[in-house]
Parts: sequence; structure tokens; C-alpha cells
Amino acid sequence: MEATHEVICGLDAPCHAFSAKQSSAAPTWTPKNGRQKKKTSGASLSGVDVAKEVDFPSWYQQVLLKGEMIDYYDISGCYILRPGSWEIWEILHEWFNREIRKMGVRNCSFPLFVTEDMLNKEQNHIDGFSAEVAWVTQSGSSKLDKKIAIRPTSETIIYPYLASWIKSWRELPLRLNQWNSVVRWEFKNPQPFLRSREFYWQEGHTSHLSCQGADQEVLQILDLYSCLYHDFLAIPVVPGRKTEKEKFAGADYTTTVEAYIPATGRAIQGATSHGLGQNFSKMFNITVEAPCEGQSEERTKKTFLWQNSWAYSTRVLGVMVMVHGDDKGLVIPPRVAPAQVILVPVGITASTTEDVKQSLVEAMADTRETLQDADIRVESDLREEYSPGWKFNHWELKGVPLRLEIGPKELQTGCASYARRDNGDKGSISFASLAAQVAEQLASIQSDMYTRALEKFRDNLKIITNWADFTPAINCKHLCLVPFCLKEDCEDKIKKMSEGTLDPGSEHDARAPSMGAKSLCIPFQQPSDLKGTNTACLREGCERMAEKWCMFGRSY
Amino acid sequence: MEATHEVICGLDAPCHAFSAKQSSAAPTWTPKNGRQKKKTSGASLSGVDVAKEVDFPSWYQQVLLKGEMIDYYDISGCYILRPGSWEIWEILHEWFNREIRKMGVRNCSFPLFVTEDMLNKEQNHIDGFSAEVAWVTQSGSSKLDKKIAIRPTSETIIYPYLASWIKSWRELPLRLNQWNSVVRWEFKNPQPFLRSREFYWQEGHTSHLSCQGADQEVLQILDLYSCLYHDFLAIPVVPGRKTEKEKFAGADYTTTVEAYIPATGRAIQGATSHGLGQNFSKMFNITVEAPCEGQSEERTKKTFLWQNSWAYSTRVLGVMVMVHGDDKGLVIPPRVAPAQVILVPVGITASTTEDVKQSLVEAMADTRETLQDADIRVESDLREEYSPGWKFNHWELKGVPLRLEIGPKELQTGCASYARRDNGDKGSISFASLAAQVAEQLASIQSDMYTRALEKFRDNLKIITNWADFTPAINCKHLCLVPFCLKEDCEDKIKKMSEGTLDPGSEHDARAPSMGAKSLCIPFQQPSDLKGTNTACLREGCERMAEKWCMFGRSY
Repeated sequence: MEATHEVICGLDAPCHAFSAKQSSAAPTWTPKNGRQKKKTSGASLSGVDVAKEVDFPSWYQQVLLKGEMIDYYDISGCYILRPGSWEIWEILHEWFNREIRKMGVRNCSFPLFVTEDMLNKEQNHIDGFSAEVAWVTQSGSSKLDKKIAIRPTSETIIYPYLASWIKSWRELPLRLNQWNSVVRWEFKNPQPFLRSREFYWQEGHTSHLSCQGADQEVLQILDLYSCLYHDFLAIPVVPGRKTEKEKFAGADYTTTVEAYIPATGRAIQGATSHGLGQNFSKMFNITVEAPCEGQSEERTKKTFLWQNSWAYSTRVLGVMVMVHGDDKGLVIPPRVAPAQVILVPVGITASTTEDVKQSLVEAMADTRETLQDADIRVESDLREEYSPGWKFNHWELKGVPLRLEIGPKELQTGCASYARRDNGDKGSISFASLAAQVAEQLASIQSDMYTRALEKFRDNLKIITNWADFTPAINCKHLCLVPFCLKEDCEDKIKKMSEGTLDPGSEHDARAPSMGAKSLCIPFQQPSDLKGTNTACLREGCERMAEKWCMFGRSY
Repeated sequence: MEATHEVICGLDAPCHAFSAKQSSAAPTWTPKNGRQKKKTSGASLSGVDVAKEVDFPSWYQQVLLKGEMIDYYDISGCYILRPGSWEIWEILHEWFNREIRKMGVRNCSFPLFVTEDMLNKEQNHIDGFSAEVAWVTQSGSSKLDKKIAIRPTSETIIYPYLASWIKSWRELPLRLNQWNSVVRWEFKNPQPFLRSREFYWQEGHTSHLSCQGADQEVLQILDLYSCLYHDFLAIPVVPGRKTEKEKFAGADYTTTVEAYIPATGRAIQGATSHGLGQNFSKMFNITVEAPCEGQSEERTKKTFLWQNSWAYSTRVLGVMVMVHGDDKGLVIPPRVAPAQVILVPVGITASTTEDVKQSLVEAMADTRETLQDADIRVESDLREEYSPGWKFNHWELKGVPLRLEIGPKELQTGCASYARRDNGDKGSISFASLAAQVAEQLASIQSDMYTRALEKFRDNLKIITNWADFTPAINCKHLCLVPFCLKEDCEDKIKKMSEGTLDPGSEHDARAPSMGAKSLCIPFQQPSDLKGTNTACLREGCERMAEKWCMFGRSY
């Protein structure tokens, strides 16, 4: 098995929309064994009581519930997004909205409902969704004349109207976006954020005069999605193109950013940006009279528009939790944390004088104000019925990036004590330069979280050139870059052949799922150019030449 | 019939959340006759071709469609909110979010769906909605075991979870809010923004330890709603309490801000803030162990929480259009206008030199930048295929508050020409002090729009103390303040007795609807205290004493 650390497939490529300063400091990473021991004592009853590495599904459930991100709901596959998760969503929303506005995207809102006729208009498209559509058939106690679908996505809701709105090629590109929820009534095992019957997203729908204009935007948006993961969620992603088999139903092509969950060794599709070509514009007759290329503006011809659609969903929150969370609970990257700093008063004993208590109250208030003035999101926990230790656990469970402790000792020394959530580092910060030093700590936490996630992804991304090495690598929780013919039947066979294959001699992990490996994407940044190299497709039995390096792995 | 201009019922009461400087300049108001003439010539084909005063329903439809606020949708009662309206909604959203965050409200998101059992839990509540509930009974091609409702509102979705979340009285008040859409499958005549089967709103749901705490918040939120109308939409409202008959299903009491549509003489409920009392907390067992009043903290008792819910919806956009729009189209108040200023190049003729054209292009770009730097939302219309006159009509139709024209003459004089959308005033603004003067114009437009709307409301709010004057006043498009016994049966009779009564001698307007008058609210600011004055209830035949002045009128 061949592996290299140089293969990064755009993993740590800089984003264009936002330039984050990456710290070069070496990350401190608790060794795996140290993290596996179960919580034994001293912790609150409400803490996470299962290790991430031991029982990942239960761990995920517990951190979400006990960390107060979600609650389960009366209807299977639907979840309550509590403020702890929704406010992260809002921070991302605000940034993304600002970025797309700069591109000329305008927000709007189309109805939740769609008629059966409209939904069925694009056949490939509806084939991808029909089994999951929820239907309204009744209002009050009356049966509706015609059943009405709840949108699984909005292409067929929006596009009929574009035909009447777009009157001239000069109004192009027309870029619309909406923030909403969509419903896909899946019966597979539901999971909060990753697979839910109702989920939240933004869906962008744009129309262009030229194929080039549309193609350019597909990548511009994908770059924003990379930034969202990279700069906000501190998660590396591999940008690439989906194979024909995995592309969006009705699209010409789909681009994606793929993330990696180290604990399960599975990849996850992070967000997608689709080039729809003229498929929908031909179906819905979305045309303009456009000037013929290279001719004077007087000579025009009817042109079907080139369309894109693109979306990221609340799934991003699930990826964030899975990548960063640890045995103490959530670990939220500072840039998206609703509370970046938690202030906890400490060191108060029976012998603490009223004067000192009063100074402490004032110091807490001053600190809070100083940080707020510096646009740092800060909370203080002044509850008297809980001990400092209880509070430490509580806020660690909720993933607050930085804890500041202030007590009589801190008042004397003029320095607050701090503890970092991500690596447990402790130290002190002078009250005199509080805001600047806290901001520095937060930046360092953000950057270290990214660096650690990047190392884990890089260590588990393997170049595989012999079929014999493929399934063992997949079973070792790796993602594999392989030379691939790109054909759908070959992809099906690879999936089949890598299913539940327990190689006795391998480092196979009994907890790994036994599903087959899927193609994740054809990374834009290829390890090498396979054209003309006469490299065979990886799969045993495939007699075709490889077209591209393709990333395969078990996947959510 | 007695009428007074002093009766304002809190109409122009200052808001606490935002202090707007009101201009004292006398507004210029085109006389009614001048506005009635139909557009005859010179206008684009896409202009509004019916006068507001002549055929209000058609006018409303046209300004919304041609002003590109909405489009009609394939499903009756559902509308597309195009960027022209959605971006106004977003501006309000952003402000309101900021204000409630200051109060400690946190945003979250509960599911769209609710089971039949949950929905039916509070009987009075569900009785108010059951006829309008949309039911999902099918997914893909399979029938669901149990039908599932789409939320008409979220009390019974949210409250079962509060019981498990609220662990201590120290965590109170718990204030949650969500931005979503709800569905009420009404069969009455649908109208964009005012009555639609799906509509957008925010719904706040809060839980308090004490009745006083809850009551205080009800009014604090109502004050925000007043500000939203007053400061943003330039619309006066009367704040008050709903009668028992008109309160929210399941609430102890409902407070409201009521607006007035001069063109139809009808009132409209602007937004409501409900005190739910302990009705839902008893139903869903939402309790804490709270310290007994006046006792040490050790003695506690089980206390049912006091709850509120409050909401404003996209209806606010409809009210804005109806109040301010004119025969040329929409008139958007500057504070909520997605584009506050439109730049139009003018005066280019066949003899204009290339040099001048080039200077013009630069001046347009400079002007745009100057305004953007001053946080003024500005668009420029550089399309060459349309004449300046066509553009003037186009942007007037869309309601942009201020138009700036720049041409060769303006370059020479160093002053841009301007035209105000609200009153047609024209003048010039020096390029040297552009941003400051434009900001001043926008503030003046905002304030003048409010003042005009206030005068119209004030002129049509009448004190009525004789039953004989009531229906004629209603028929004259007035709202009436009447001494009222507050009893439901009396309210029913007033409605019945004022239905379609065409008093031959009155100034009755044949276009006014013939529905009966409803109670709108009991204004907080009463014209006088009726207690102990032995004033009879207004209605002929009612033998009870009046309890309060109550505002009646035809209503949306």
C-alpha cells in the first residue's frame, strides 16, 4: 500500500473570500488512549458518559442532547434545533448572505408547496426525489381535490416563473437565493443534522446567458463553501466534481466539498454546487433573445439559459460536532461559537470577606464589558447554587472555546486564569491587556482546531494503486485516491466488492461499518495527470484505462 | 356626530426602542381629485393602470405584481415573495432580532410538523385553528400510519419540551423565538400578505416565574411592534387590548397594534402580543419549584409558569403598500427600502460628445460610491435601451424613495437633480455635500410619510356617543371610539346591526364593504376614564354601563 503525506487534493488550499491567518504553532493532541477511558467520577451526572472512540453513535447523540444543541421530537426524523445550534447557523447565514450579496444574489421566498404537475415536469429530477415526497391531501376535515407536495427542493417551483420574469439578456445573470426548510421523507436511519426529514438550507438558483458564466459561478460558490468549512468550522475539505453516478438528479454536473470524520473513517458530502446546463431551461422554456456572438447587437437568436443551483444545509453543524467534539462534549470553533468566552467566579470560601466578594462582582462585570466592547461574545455564570467545578464541566460540555476564571487570587495578581476548551491548556491573562489577549487565544484555538483536523484528514487520505490494498485501506478508516475509469458500472462493482470484506490479516476495525466504498469526488487538484499515461483503472477485472484520480470511501 | 382631533389613543406616542426625529415641516399632499385621474399617456405599458381610489383591489394587485413585490403562484392562496418584498422583510428581521436579543431572547427552530395528539392538547386553542389545518397523509406512494399536521402556530409544538428543559426557577425567564412560515388553509378570499395560506412570521414564546414579569414583557414586545410600524414603515398604530371575543385562542388576553387603511376605511390588526397566563403551562405541566414569596429560599412550592407568545408577520408589508402606495405604484419608506436611491443618467443626445459621456460614467460611479460609503442603499440604472422617462416610471412603480438624475447640465452646475417619490418634490443637491444632503432628504421623506399617514388616521378616528351616528360613521370609512360594555353578545349585535346598512342620507361610499363593524381594540390611551361616570354602552338596546372606550371599525 502506497501512502504519501504530500497528497492533499486542495485540502489546505487558501480560500479567496476570506484570508485566515494560520498559526504555525504545533498542536497539542491528547493521545488516543488517554481519551478512551470512560468518565469515572467528579463529573456531573449530565456529562457525556460514553467515549467518542468506543461508541460513536451514542456519543454523538449524547453530545447533541446534553450539549443542548438539539432535542428529539415526537415525529421520527424531525429534530428541534435549540439556540445552541441555531445561533451557529445564524452566524454562518449572516456571513454567507453578505458574501452572495456582493455577487449580486438577491434573496426571496417561494412557497413550501408544489403541485404534482409542476413537481413532475423534469423527469430525471423527480425520479431522484419521488419516493421521499410528503403529500398534503387534506385540509381541516375536507379532502383536497388534488394532493399537494411539500418541496423536497425548489427547482420546479422556481423555474416556471423565471420564464416570465427574465425579459432581456441585459438582466442576466439573475441570481436568486432563499433560506428555508425542505422535506424528504426518508425511511433510512435518521440522524440529527445528517439525515432528517425536514432540514434547513439555503438554495441558490441562478440563470446565465453563457455556459462559461454559469460554470464560473459554480466554482465561485464552491469556494465560499470551502471557506465556510475552512475558516468558520475549522474543517478541511476536498473540493471536486461528482461522478456521473453521484451527481444531482437533473444536473449536467455537480461539484462538492467533501469532509472526513476521523472517528468513523467515513467521508461526508459537505455542500454542493450544481451546473444544471440547459436541462431545466429547455423544460421550462426559459429563454432570451440574445445577440449572436461576434455579431452586431441587432442580430439576435433565441437562447436557452444556463442555470445553476447550489446549497449548504444544517448538515454542516453535524460535521462540525463529529469532527471536533471530544469525550467532554462539544468543541465549538470560536468563529461560530454563540458564546466564545465563559466567565466563572472561583475561589470563594466561607472565609471570603464581603469586600472581596463585592470586588469580584465588579471585576466580573468589568471583564464582561471589556470583552463585549471588543466584539467578543461572552457569557458569565454567576449562579450561586453550583460549584466552579460543576460549571467547568457544564460549559465544557457545551463547547465554549475559552473559560476565564476570576477569584480573590486573580484580583491580587491582576491576571485572570484561562482554560482552552480544545486542548485543555491553562494559563493567565493580564486584566490590563484582556481583550487583545483573549482575541489572540481565540484565533489560536480556531487555527489549532483546523490544523489538527487537517492532519487527521491528511493522515487518512491514501493513494492506492493496487486493488488488493483498497478494501483493507477502507477498513482502516482511510479514504482512497485511486486511478479510475469513471464508469458507473465500475463504480457499482467497487462498492459491491468492498462491502463487509473482513480481511483477517488487516488492521480492520470491528466497529467500522461494512458498507461498500462510494466515489466521493474527482478532486480538482489531482495528484498527477493520468492522461496518456496508460494507467489502468484500479478495479480488479476492469479493463479500461483510468481517466482521473477519484476519491473513494465509506460515506454518510 | 361628535368628532375631535385631540383623540389620538396613543397614535403618535413615542416609541421607547428607537427615537426618530420627526420633521415639523408641513407635508405636501396631492388633493384627492388630482390622484383619481387615470394614467393617460407617456407611461410605460407596465405601469399601474387603475387609480387607488377608483378600484382598490385591482390597484393593490397591480402595484404588487408590477412593482415586482410578489408573483401569483400555481396554488391558490400561496404567493412568491420576490426580492422586492423579501429584502424589506429582511431589514425588519435584522432590526427586530437585534432588539429581542438585547432582551435575552434566543432564536431556535422547531419542526414544521405536529402530530394530531399534540395539536389537540389545548382545546380552546385548537378550536381556533382546526378547520384550517393542512394534513400530510402520504409519503412517496405510501399512506402514513397517522396523519401529520403542518403547524398553524407552534404553541403545542414547543410547550411540551419546555417542561423538560426548564430545571430551575433561576433559569427564568426563558425566552425563545423562531422565524418560520406557518400554514392556515383558509378558504376565504386570499390576498397577498393579508390572507395567505402560507405566511412568514416570527413567533416568540416565553416562560416566566411571575405574572408581573410576563405582563411586563407583553407590553415591551408590543412597544417593539409599535416602533416597527412607526419608525420603519412610517405607519401610525393604536396600541390596545383585544376584547374577550377577539383574543387569541387559548390566551388570557391579547394586546395588539391596529393600523388604518385610508383608501378602504378598514382597520387592520398589525401584530399581537399575547399573555397566555397559565393555560398552557397547566396543560403541558410546565412548572418549577420556586421559593415561596416573602419566605427564605429553602421553602419552595410547585409553580406553573406564566407564558407569552407574540408574533408579527409578512402582513406588515401589505399594510405598508396599502397605506403609502399611490397611482404611480409602490412608495417604500426609506428606512426599509432595499434601494433608497436610484441614479439615472439624463440629457444625453445625439450631439453629446464622447468626452461628456465619459465624464458622466465617472460621475455616476463616483456618486454611487460616495453614497454607498455613507451606508445609503443605492442602485444605478445604466441600461442604454431605455429612455430616462421610461426609467423614471419604472423606479417610481417600484417605490424607490429618491431619484438622482445626472446629465451634462448637472456636471456643469455641480449639482445633481433629485425627485422625491413620496410627494414629487424636485430640486438639486450639490455634489460637494451629496451624502449628507441625500441622508437629509431620506429622513425628511420618512418623516413626512409618517406625518401624512398620521393625519389620515387622526382625521378618520371619531368619538361616537350616539348609536344613530355609529353606522353612518363606519360607512364614511371612519373608525369609531365608543363607550362599550365589553360583552361578547353586545359585540355580536353591533356587528350585525352595522352590516350593509345603507343610510340614504349619509355620505355612504358605495365602494365601501358592507361587512359589520368589529371591535378592534380597547386603546391603552383612553379618551377619558369611564369608571363611575354611569355612561351607557353605545349600542341601542344594551342596558349595561360602558366599561371602556373601545375602537370599532370594518376590518381586514
